[in-house]
Amino acid sequence: MSQTLTIETLNGKVTEIFRRAGLSPIQAKSVAAVITAGERDNCKSHGVYRIAGCLKTLKAGKVDPDAAPELVDDGSAVIRVNAGGGFSPASFAIGAPILAERAKAQGIAALVINDCTHFSALWPEIEALTAQGLAAMAMCPSYATVAPAGGSAPVLGTNPFAFGWPRPGRPPFVFDFATSIVARGEVELHRQDGKPLPEGWAVDRDGRPTTDPEAALDGAMLPFGAHKGSAISIMIELLAGAMIGDLTSPEALDWLGGTTSLLPHHGELILAMSPERFAAGRPGDPFARAETLLRAISDQGARLPSERRFAAREISERDGITLSDEEIATLDRLLDGAATG
Amino acid sequence: MSQTLTIETLNGKVTEIFRRAGLSPIQAKSVAAVITAGERDNCKSHGVYRIAGCLKTLKAGKVDPDAAPELVDDGSAVIRVNAGGGFSPASFAIGAPILAERAKAQGIAALVINDCTHFSALWPEIEALTAQGLAAMAMCPSYATVAPAGGSAPVLGTNPFAFGWPRPGRPPFVFDFATSIVARGEVELHRQDGKPLPEGWAVDRDGRPTTDPEAALDGAMLPFGAHKGSAISIMIELLAGAMIGDLTSPEALDWLGGTTSLLPHHGELILAMSPERFAAGRPGDPFARAETLLRAISDQGARLPSERRFAAREISERDGITLSDEEIATLDRLLDGAATG
Repeated sequence: MSQTLTIETLNGKVTEIFRRAGLSPIQAKSVAAVITAGERDNCKSHGVYRIAGCLKTLKAGKVDPDAAPELVDDGSAVIRVNAGGGFSPASFAIGAPILAERAKAQGIAALVINDCTHFSALWPEIEALTAQGLAAMAMCPSYATVAPAGGSAPVLGTNPFAFGWPRPGRPPFVFDFATSIVARGEVELHRQDGKPLPEGWAVDRDGRPTTDPEAALDGAMLPFGAHKGSAISIMIELLAGAMIGDLTSPEALDWLGGTTSLLPHHGELILAMSPERFAAGRPGDPFARAETLLRAISDQGARLPSERRFAAREISERDGITLSDEEIATLDRLLDGAATG
Repeated sequence: MSQTLTIETLNGKVTEIFRRAGLSPIQAKSVAAVITAGERDNCKSHGVYRIAGCLKTLKAGKVDPDAAPELVDDGSAVIRVNAGGGFSPASFAIGAPILAERAKAQGIAALVINDCTHFSALWPEIEALTAQGLAAMAMCPSYATVAPAGGSAPVLGTNPFAFGWPRPGRPPFVFDFATSIVARGEVELHRQDGKPLPEGWAVDRDGRPTTDPEAALDGAMLPFGAHKGSAISIMIELLAGAMIGDLTSPEALDWLGGTTSLLPHHGELILAMSPERFAAGRPGDPFARAETLLRAISDQGARLPSERRFAAREISERDGITLSDEEIATLDRLLDGAATG
């Protein structure tokens, strides 16, 4: 059984849930936009089921529902938004237009988000920038749940890394992935289902390889791509933690008192680059050259990242978003409960 | 048998080889610096044995020995150096001081190198920027020898990706790796030794997994980290090929007429960021915060990237660089032969 809603209807319901729970209009609107986009693209990891986690973090006092993001712009290529303890998407919404303008003027610019409760996939942010004709890169720490390659103790987060390139007349080239070998939720699912983990996903608390989900959750996940993925994850801690004057993954875990059941608090780094500026005066069109490359990949049957998401989006935009009865019941329960919970 | 030279002596010999071969002073000096740094750090992939490849590329007319790199600086955050068909290190040498100055002024800046014959590891460039107190990222395409994840045909290069973070009072955190699962030279070595490749390194020309080095060289290598590494390699083609108005890896291979026995011609992208600017006004010291993280990695016995290089450097700086008799003979032969060859 299932029910189909328009994108606007779902967005309205989710926004209303957050409004009733006490979020300010900008906070409610921007978090709801992430969840709606997740369901629209059939990207369930940021869909309706995540609402409860946002509300739980709110009830635990670990996010400020009224936070007014504060823009700090000194005219340089680095723009900062102090989230003031609010959710990250509101800060991105404030900073993104300035970031885009600065990248077009300077060729490259950076947006720093500080002191946010981080809730978003990175791809909605990447796509907001590719829609402006910009290439974009985004990254952030998380809680410390991942051991470095060759190590045993969790000091890295699942540290997502995302990138986008605008493709005229079609969806952008976008990737957005955890630098852990899998998302932590995958390990949780194996635990719930009583299934062993594949080899190479995790170590136990003594640093020994394990396929036991319990031992893995008590120990550490491993980075993707062995020492290379581990190095990229460390880069993300340094750039999107230390460099921007915000928390690294071990500090983010401490800030929550050691739990990973609430949304983490840290910063984020987003870079935007203008291909028109970077290619100025050079022979050839950067977008046409990119299409030649991307077609050579697609034409041999290799899937480009995000293709499944864009296919799901096309269906949602045409036919609406189909939710299970359980998801609809969750929405209704949260709509009723958010005001009183 | 072996012979030990001071760093300066080796650098002088290598510079003289390139001068006698017809390279201009800046071209000879900057390529020799890369080779000397490679030997100093016992990083043989960019050591003395590479001199012959540089000279072969010169004799094939695929590098301009007299090229004068041309700086294009419009005052924005993007600085360009047109290599004019010369070796890449001369262009980096011209652009790096402006890149560092601009990154300190703007927070972030980019250096584009166009139209170069690319010969360098990326770590010497990264270290030139970390020595200025900057975080740095560098990347470039190569020849098309790597298939995308899920594909069969080589459209990506081994596309190196490098990053550095300055560590006060000690060598920087630096990584520099191919986004292919291994460097192409590793496959060559297996072929020479008649040894099968490990599983997962390569596909044959029909896209089937192979452990036969011949079939792999005729087919394609694979990216590190499956679809995630593949996505990063594509990002490098887009940013350091298409975006900067320069060749992607398939175009670079075409430019050489399909051979990988000469040095490739393409561009490079280097980003520099000022932690002092990015962390300005924020609580805490970004460098101290980074040290806490890096110590938490080292203290659990995980090796940081480049540690072996820095250990070798310490020995070379104290005791000199020890070369095999064969390497010494190569140097002497090239010194005699370069003028007449």
